[in-house]
Parts: sequence; C-alpha cells; structure tokens
Amino acid sequence: MSQEIGVTGLAVMGANLARNLARHGCRVVVHNRTRARTDALLAAHGDEGEFVATGSVHEFVAALQRPRRVVVMVQAGAPTDAVVEELMAVLEAGDVLVDGGNARYTDTIRRTAACAEKGVHFVGAGISGGEEGALLGPSIMPGGSAEAYALVGPLLESIAAVVDGTPCCTHVDGDGAGHFVKMVHNGIEYADMQLIAEAYDLLRLRLGMSPAEIGEVFAGWNEGDLDSYLIEITAEVLRHVDADTGRPFVDVVLDQAEQKGTGRWTVQSALDLGVPVSGIAEAVFARALSGHAEQRAAARGVLPGPAAPPEPVGDRDGFVEAVRQALYASKVVAYAQGFDQIAAGAQAHGWNVDRAALATIWRGGCIIRARFLDRIRQAFTDDPGLTTLLVHPYFRDAVAQCQEGWRTVVVEAVRAGVPAPGFASALAYYDGLRAERLPAALVQGLRDLFGAHTYRRVDREGSFHTLWSEDRSERPVG
Amino acid sequence: MSQEIGVTGLAVMGANLARNLARHGCRVVVHNRTRARTDALLAAHGDEGEFVATGSVHEFVAALQRPRRVVVMVQAGAPTDAVVEELMAVLEAGDVLVDGGNARYTDTIRRTAACAEKGVHFVGAGISGGEEGALLGPSIMPGGSAEAYALVGPLLESIAAVVDGTPCCTHVDGDGAGHFVKMVHNGIEYADMQLIAEAYDLLRLRLGMSPAEIGEVFAGWNEGDLDSYLIEITAEVLRHVDADTGRPFVDVVLDQAEQKGTGRWTVQSALDLGVPVSGIAEAVFARALSGHAEQRAAARGVLPGPAAPPEPVGDRDGFVEAVRQALYASKVVAYAQGFDQIAAGAQAHGWNVDRAALATIWRGGCIIRARFLDRIRQAFTDDPGLTTLLVHPYFRDAVAQCQEGWRTVVVEAVRAGVPAPGFASALAYYDGLRAERLPAALVQGLRDLFGAHTYRRVDREGSFHTLWSEDRSERPVG
Repeated sequence: MSQEIGVTGLAVMGANLARNLARHGCRVVVHNRTRARTDALLAAHGDEGEFVATGSVHEFVAALQRPRRVVVMVQAGAPTDAVVEELMAVLEAGDVLVDGGNARYTDTIRRTAACAEKGVHFVGAGISGGEEGALLGPSIMPGGSAEAYALVGPLLESIAAVVDGTPCCTHVDGDGAGHFVKMVHNGIEYADMQLIAEAYDLLRLRLGMSPAEIGEVFAGWNEGDLDSYLIEITAEVLRHVDADTGRPFVDVVLDQAEQKGTGRWTVQSALDLGVPVSGIAEAVFARALSGHAEQRAAARGVLPGPAAPPEPVGDRDGFVEAVRQALYASKVVAYAQGFDQIAAGAQAHGWNVDRAALATIWRGGCIIRARFLDRIRQAFTDDPGLTTLLVHPYFRDAVAQCQEGWRTVVVEAVRAGVPAPGFASALAYYDGLRAERLPAALVQGLRDLFGAHTYRRVDREGSFHTLWSEDRSERPVG
Repeated sequence: MSQEIGVTGLAVMGANLARNLARHGCRVVVHNRTRARTDALLAAHGDEGEFVATGSVHEFVAALQRPRRVVVMVQAGAPTDAVVEELMAVLEAGDVLVDGGNARYTDTIRRTAACAEKGVHFVGAGISGGEEGALLGPSIMPGGSAEAYALVGPLLESIAAVVDGTPCCTHVDGDGAGHFVKMVHNGIEYADMQLIAEAYDLLRLRLGMSPAEIGEVFAGWNEGDLDSYLIEITAEVLRHVDADTGRPFVDVVLDQAEQKGTGRWTVQSALDLGVPVSGIAEAVFARALSGHAEQRAAARGVLPGPAAPPEPVGDRDGFVEAVRQALYASKVVAYAQGFDQIAAGAQAHGWNVDRAALATIWRGGCIIRARFLDRIRQAFTDDPGLTTLLVHPYFRDAVAQCQEGWRTVVVEAVRAGVPAPGFASALAYYDGLRAERLPAALVQGLRDLFGAHTYRRVDREGSFHTLWSEDRSERPVG
C-alpha cells in the first residue's frame, strides 16, 4: 500500500492537513474548487513533501491509486454535500471518503449510508486543534467502519499529535460516532471557556486585579492540576497589550462572544438523549446573552445590583485559591456531563465508544487537551462502565477537596452580583446528583393533578393516578 | 353560518372539547378511529347538547356542511399525520382543519403548506388547560391564516376560558405560530414548576417544615402576587395525605420527574434562535437528572456535602419571605426569557405576535394562568416593543424589591448543599444582563487565538485578527 492520499478543499485547515501529510512522507494529491489555492499551496510549501496538484475532480481522483483515499476539508453542510456528490460520481467501490470537517453527526450518518450503497467507505472524522493542530498534529476522531479505518487509520495516526508515545487518533466507532464525539468535545470546550471567563471576571471584579496580574495567576495554575492548553492561552491573551491603545487587549475586545454551532448542537442532542449537560448549556446561553446588545443596553444602569455590595475580600490569596477550586470542580462536572452524553449517544446509536480511548486521544492535539484528561483516561480504564466520572475515587476526592472554595466563590458571586452561571450551575448539579431525595416528587404530583400524567410510588411497583377532582382515591394505571 | 363543528379523536381531551362545544350550543359531529369511544361519549354525555355520532371518516365529513370545520384531537406526530392524510382525501377547498394536539410547530408549518395546496385551511391550535380546561374553558392559541380564523375563531372563543370578560383565545398569527407559542408556554410551565419545587425543598430542608405546613405557606402565597393555578395546586398536593400509608402524599411519590417533550423542544428551538432560556433549560435538566436513578444511587452517600453544614435558620418567617422573593424574581426571569423566545421566533418566521394579547389569553384556562400575567399584559401594552420584561418599570421594581431575599436564598442553598439550579441560574442571568461588561471579551480573545475566529473592538468598527503565533500585530479582516 503506497502512502498516498488526496485532499480536496485547501482553505487553511485543508492546506495545513495536506502539508502535515506531506511532511510525514505521504504523496498528497491536492485539489481545490478554484485552482488558485492549489497553486498557492504548492508555491509556498511545495518543497515540504510530495504534492501533486490537480485541476478537475476527475483529474484529482484519477491521480490516486485504488482503493483511493480522499479527505474532504470543506465547510460543513451544503458545501460538503456538494463535494461528496461530485466525488461520488467518480469514486468506485472500495474507495474511502474521509470528511474532516465539522459535520453534524446526523449528516454523517446519512452520508455514510448513501456512500455505502455504492460500496464507498465514508469516514466522518472529527479533527480538533485548529489551524495549528492541523499542521503540527491534531486530535483525530474517525468514525466509519473498521474496514475503512484499516485503510486510512494508519495514515491519520501518523499525522496526529502524540502523547506518551500514543497517537491522538483512534477509531471511535461506526458511521456518525466520530463527528458525534467531536461535537461533544466542542461542547465541553464551550463549558471550559465559560468557566475560565468566570474565574477571570471574579478575580478582576472582586480583587481588582489587572488582566496581566490575572494572566500570571493563570500561568501559575497551568503548573498544577489545571495544566491545559486553554489555561495556557488564557494567560497569553490576558497578558497581551493592545498596540494601538496601550490598554490590556481583553479590554479593547467587544464583550460579545460568538459561536459557530457545535455547542448548540451538543445541547440539542443532549436534550434528545435526556442527559443534563447544564454546564455546556449555561456556556452557550452566556454567549447568547452577551450578544444581545440591545437588551444589555436597556438593562445596564437600570436593573439594580445588590443594595449593600460586599466588603472587599480580605484574604486575597485565599480567594484566588478558592476561585481555582471552583474552576477545577466545575470543570470536572462539565466533563462528567459530556462523557455521560457520549455514553448515552453511543447507546442510542448502537456504537461501542471506549471513553478511556477518547480521553487518551484528547490528551493532545485538540483544544481541550489537558493533563486532567489523563486522569479521566485512568478513571475509565479502571472502570469502563463507570456511571459518572464524579464517583470515581480520584475525582470524588479531588472535587471534595475543592468543595469549600467552590461554595465560597459562588456565594461571593451571588453577594457581589457578579454573574457566574457556570460555577453555580455545576454546583447545583453536584448537589442534585448527591441528594437523598429531590423535589421532583412534587413535580410529578403536580403533573398528575393537572394532566393525569400519573406517578410511581416509592413503596410499590406500577404507575398510579389520584382522582384529584373526585374523592382523591388512587388508581393503578396501565 | 350554522354553529357546527366536527371533532375526531375522542380520548379525554377530544371528548371534553366536544362536550364543551356541545354545551355552548354547537352541533358537534363526532368521530373516533374505534367506534366504541364515540358510543361511550354519547351514552355518558349525549344529553349535554347536540351530538352526531359517525362511523367512518367519510360519514364524518359528509355529516358537516361546507365549509366544513374539523378539529383533530389525536396524539402529536405520526398519528396526527395519519389522520390529516385521511381527512385530506375527503375535505375540499375552503374547509378548515384544526389540529388541537401538542404538535411540534415545525410539523404544523409543514402541514399548513401541504393542506394549502389543496385549498384547505390548516389551523395549528395550541390548547392548554389539561382535561379539565378542555371541558370547562381552555386557553386556545390558534395559528393559521386570518381567513381560517374568521371561520373557526368565534367558535373557539366561545368555548375558551374568560377573564375580565375577555375570552382566552386569540389569533396568534400564521401557520405554526399557535403551536410555537404553546410550546413556549409549556417551557415556561417547566420553569414555573421547577422553581416551585426548589422553594418547597428549601423550606423543607432548611426549616424542617412538613409538607402540610409548606402547603399552608403556598396557600398563603396564593393570596398575593404569586396567585396562580400552579401555586394553588401545589398547596393541594402538599396537603394531600396518602390513604395507604398515612404519610404525606409527596413522600410516597417516586422523586423522578418525567417529561413528554415540549420543554425539550422549547430549549432546542431557543438554542436555534440564540435566546438564552436558562430557566427552562435548568428545569428540563433537573427532571432529566432526577430520572438518572443509577447515577443518583452511585452518588448518594458517596459525594460529600458541605463540611460544615450551616446553622439552623434563625428567622423562620424571614426565610419563608426570602424564599417567596426568590420564587417571584426567578419566575419573572423565566417569563422574560420565554417572551424573548416568542419575539425571536416571530421574527425568524415572519409572524406578527402580539405579546400583550398572548399574556391576555394566558391569564385564564391554561396551566400557567396567574394574576401575574395581567401585569405582563400591561407591560407589553404599555410598550409593545419592550426589549425585555425585566426593564419594564413594574417588573424592574418588583424584582428589585425581591433581590435581597433572592440572593439570601441562593447563598443559603449553596452553603447548605441544597440544589437550587433554577433560582441560581435566574439570578446569574439577571446579573449577566445588567453587567457593565461581561468576560465574553476573554472568550472572543481565546477563540481568535486558537481558531482565528476574529473579534470586534470597543473603539472601532470591523472585525480583527491578531497574528498570535507571529508578531502579535493586528489585522482587519473581511
């Protein structure tokens, strides 16, 4: 089998992936809808390896040996459908089509089935790591059949990031599994960033620290349990000074966060699966809220804050440590929720997803890469059927140690009127999960009264309905 | 025009609606897939008005004068499609088909278009109030064309609940508008119930009050600003004693809340619309969490709570009042979010939805009926373009007066380890909305660093990207 692959779609992600492949000794046949990009790639980086520039889709496919291996790197949605359709007119049974874009996993399931009808293997591969990752080693989450993985897996593994000698690429499982876990990865990324933003905001508003000082705090945190790419770049962004104004960079950036959709998809999927991913949802909503400029302008200065603002924080180092604890504990909750969604999604779609293997390939290359993920890998290796990450002894103890700081920080945020939806929601989830009894019983009682929705009892099997508007006797139902 | 209508689907909701129509002097032609239900209805209630029992769909339609008016009361989804298809084979141009089920509004849009091709008016009508409401006067939210409303609106208005002389039925707007607002109504209902459950839980766990005592508190609240159907029936449920065991009813009900889908749909739609409905989302997630019995069993007794549980509450009356304030303020937030979603949905679909008219028809008949909704009606009457309910002077002041209790209760919940995701999330939303600046700027900075997603600046127009891995200079983009 010659080390050969085709890449179509040469925007930055595609071009960088092609370069990464070429740098690893692969013969890379490249193609782009407009030829100029192909030429530009070869002009700038043609000396990095063996590139074959092609002009038409026909020429592109013809330049590859069978079974052909083609990676599509175009925008998700309609553009991907268009390219897949064009390629399918030329590809033959046994060929492999890899979609390395950010496709919605339900589209990937659909495309996999459509391609299979012509005997073409479709591999929806989540690729995380941004432009730099694509070039230097991303984390790759391929779905598709085992047969397809045998044909493209080794090549993908060769260009992935490597941690402790292990490539950050593993066969997730059939059809949409790869894009499904990539979606949840992005959802977790939303939660991670929201929690970081809340930590920054509290240090700024409660301790009066400058962005640069907070950058130092994050750099320090990056030496410990929080060691991760996002913490590292938070320090970078906070230390950065705007050249134009001399002000901290973060102060010249408009405070309206945007989103491209994968966070929203994650929450929508979790709702269908019945998995409470409150950490991701609050993060998506926090971005949405930030973007409602008109509402914020109407509320600013009009909605009052706490009548008596709290005293300045006395123990500054203690508060910094409490914020670190809140960040760490909330992060564990967000990851626990995300891994729950992966387990539920796998069950719903009949995929066999190894959560330990997933944590393994997220240790490097991707945006949420972190030391922390090695702990998660260990937890799911210890107990592949772990019902929630939170009850694994390591995380149970780690969160327990953070608990006091976590509660202190949420109390402080509430008293001071600083929004901390991520910290507060994660804590409410933790307290809900461990509750002896939840007031959900009252909700069920109300539902039975107004809608005859029935309820179950603590002391016998079956469903029951109380005749609320009659004599209030109880009837077994169904 | 004779007062005549057909009703097909005679389960409890359909049968009660047919009786309601007959009781109001309407000639009601009834039909059910299995004839037995039709006969049972006439046997039990045939004397309440003029019913015409029919056996086949053909006979059903033939018994109606043109333009025929038919109400479908069957399960949402495939069963509704099946019945609509059957009826469309017999109905003619000019007839009106009303779907009174809990359809997903996107299905209603599709059905409206399909029926319009044959000249049949399709009216997706949200009907709230449960079985009792259907019989005694529901709140009705019909969509569809103005022409269709002219044909069925007066009949629907005649059977709706009446508040201050105004029927709780109004033409919401075109195609899916009725089912869309009904969906959001249900989402708000989820939030309402979750907040009630949290209030109950805190009174129980922090004050050691019995369910019956808490029922008294709710009954008292029902005399004031919180006066509403849900508060009223909460008092009823809490006071109810299980005949079998002699224990409070709420203690024999399994604490796992179920859901039928409209809450989930509301949040999924809000995510697409970019509207933060955190109150509804936390309520949906709280139900989901309660149902994860295996995880809860694994966490119970294993995840530690606060090391030092808080002192017993000294001022009991003060705490009860603080809980009332938390409930009221959080409820205003949930409604503000829901009405935001309605405005956004209307804009996205080109509907002209009058939020004041909607608040008007929600004052009676439906599950969320409340004195409170008259205040909302007033607010949107004062200012039809109101950007958020929270900034209307009445609600701004009402929430301001509740603020101290609200913050106290969230602090108390956090300290005591009692989950209050609804109260906490609503407060975080309030603080986010009124924030001078949000840490979303940091999120945008991070997104620009790892994904070149660009950012806007506070001091000039345009989008920008910093060359993070080069000299960190800034480039305008696009």
